[in-house]
Amino acid sequence: MVNLKLDLENTQKKIDKTIKSLLPRGRGIENKLFKAIEYSILSTGKRLRPFLVIQSSKLFDVDEKYALRVATAIEMIHAYSLVHDDLPSMDNDTLRRGIPTTHKKYNEATAILTGDSLLTLSFQILSDDLTHNDSEVRCELISELAKAAGAQGMVAGQMMDLEAEKKKFSIGVITRIQRLKTGALIAFACNSGAILGKADKKHRFALQGFAHDIGLAYQIKDDLLDVTSTTKELGKKVKKDKKAGKKNFVSILGKERAKKQLEFLTNQAIKHLEIFDYKANLLREIARFIVERNK
Amino acid sequence: MVNLKLDLENTQKKIDKTIKSLLPRGRGIENKLFKAIEYSILSTGKRLRPFLVIQSSKLFDVDEKYALRVATAIEMIHAYSLVHDDLPSMDNDTLRRGIPTTHKKYNEATAILTGDSLLTLSFQILSDDLTHNDSEVRCELISELAKAAGAQGMVAGQMMDLEAEKKKFSIGVITRIQRLKTGALIAFACNSGAILGKADKKHRFALQGFAHDIGLAYQIKDDLLDVTSTTKELGKKVKKDKKAGKKNFVSILGKERAKKQLEFLTNQAIKHLEIFDYKANLLREIARFIVERNK
Repeated sequence: MVNLKLDLENTQKKIDKTIKSLLPRGRGIENKLFKAIEYSILSTGKRLRPFLVIQSSKLFDVDEKYALRVATAIEMIHAYSLVHDDLPSMDNDTLRRGIPTTHKKYNEATAILTGDSLLTLSFQILSDDLTHNDSEVRCELISELAKAAGAQGMVAGQMMDLEAEKKKFSIGVITRIQRLKTGALIAFACNSGAILGKADKKHRFALQGFAHDIGLAYQIKDDLLDVTSTTKELGKKVKKDKKAGKKNFVSILGKERAKKQLEFLTNQAIKHLEIFDYKANLLREIARFIVERNK
Repeated sequence: MVNLKLDLENTQKKIDKTIKSLLPRGRGIENKLFKAIEYSILSTGKRLRPFLVIQSSKLFDVDEKYALRVATAIEMIHAYSLVHDDLPSMDNDTLRRGIPTTHKKYNEATAILTGDSLLTLSFQILSDDLTHNDSEVRCELISELAKAAGAQGMVAGQMMDLEAEKKKFSIGVITRIQRLKTGALIAFACNSGAILGKADKKHRFALQGFAHDIGLAYQIKDDLLDVTSTTKELGKKVKKDKKAGKKNFVSILGKERAKKQLEFLTNQAIKHLEIFDYKANLLREIARFIVERNK
């Protein structure tokens, strides 16, 4: 895990530098918007999705400058989704990564526009030839990201999650909600390396298998942390699902079975990586990290 | 104007058909989202932006099936911006095109997700090879649309507009706000035909000139209608700017000077079209229509 920790820190620095270089700037009346955008994306996150982009790109010897831009685009989508989901009419969260959420720090209108800006900027970055010299690759990235993030991906997941309050869903429905809400974007982060590297079908399938399992494992761990951790440790409110009357993996399966399912998915995820041999070592470590993290 | 009326109706039918064919469908729990998306985009609008895409595409003999998809993508951005701008924390509007706004018909959370969905879907449509066979053209469309709609375009305009309440801005600042808030997307609609048709610089500049003037003329006419029309005629609340203490073209210039400025801009817009000869006849009529419309 020493390698992983160093590599995560290293990636975080590179990502933050790339993000900063791609943020809108200006001194007009709209300056407040630029500040809110910076606040929302630069407050430290784990940068898990960017790390998955960088590592999956390494499997196919993709130029790192391409991977960093795609990683930034995905992190912007992730940040936009948090800003909008935290809004009072949605999950009504006041704390995120230990600091006030964007609408608390600024106001609701600014938070909505911040999310809209990050979402739009993400596609702008991907369309630029600095992201890849082949425009077919850029279009594939945009198409796949839009599918993962849109009305039949992440946004559908959030809609279902809102509808889920006070309703009793089966484990099948909960799995579908989580696959869409968090799994789709994590899967795209894993797959983006294969798109950038124009990988063949065999390697794409292997990576998709990994992405699929790791996305769900990530959510089960999140649900476990929600009941075993504290607000201080996580930097966000805990036991939210219970308070909202929402079912999740832990409330349906119980802690022990959820832990077993997490372990099973992680092992299965790692198994998909065999084809990549030693080149996937850091991806294997990230899978372990997802199970063992405490925030 | 007979031709124009028929052509507008004809375009509206084709656009609505294309939009319908591109909307997300499904019978899951997220179905409410799909209904809200359809409600937001299919409630009749003038479809001015789609019309500008179709007409500018005709100047360069672009395949109409390409133009219809780009027109749909732009109308989705327009619809998303209305849904978000109408929210309580923004302009707090309850009526749009004579029917309840999306958050009134559904709820705030659904309206936010509807806007997010439409914005994302717009880029997804543009990235597909059904929109153009050349991926370089698709990337240029995405890049230019993102610039027009994002944090340095339309969203910046909305941010400035929110900040403008209770403040006294000069005509220069008002012009900049309106150029960003409504002008940028109208300009992109005009220019998209030149991108689709891979037009040369001379023709692009001419069209950009037209787009620039027509975008501002449109807003001045909107401000005039806000003081001269009724809620029933417009299908949305009137005299909003005055109530909110916002300055606009009419409150700064006065009705008579605003009318003169509108006439001047329209003539200037039409002058830019000379290079296209008879091929631009319907674009000339649309410029006249913008001045003479009563809603």
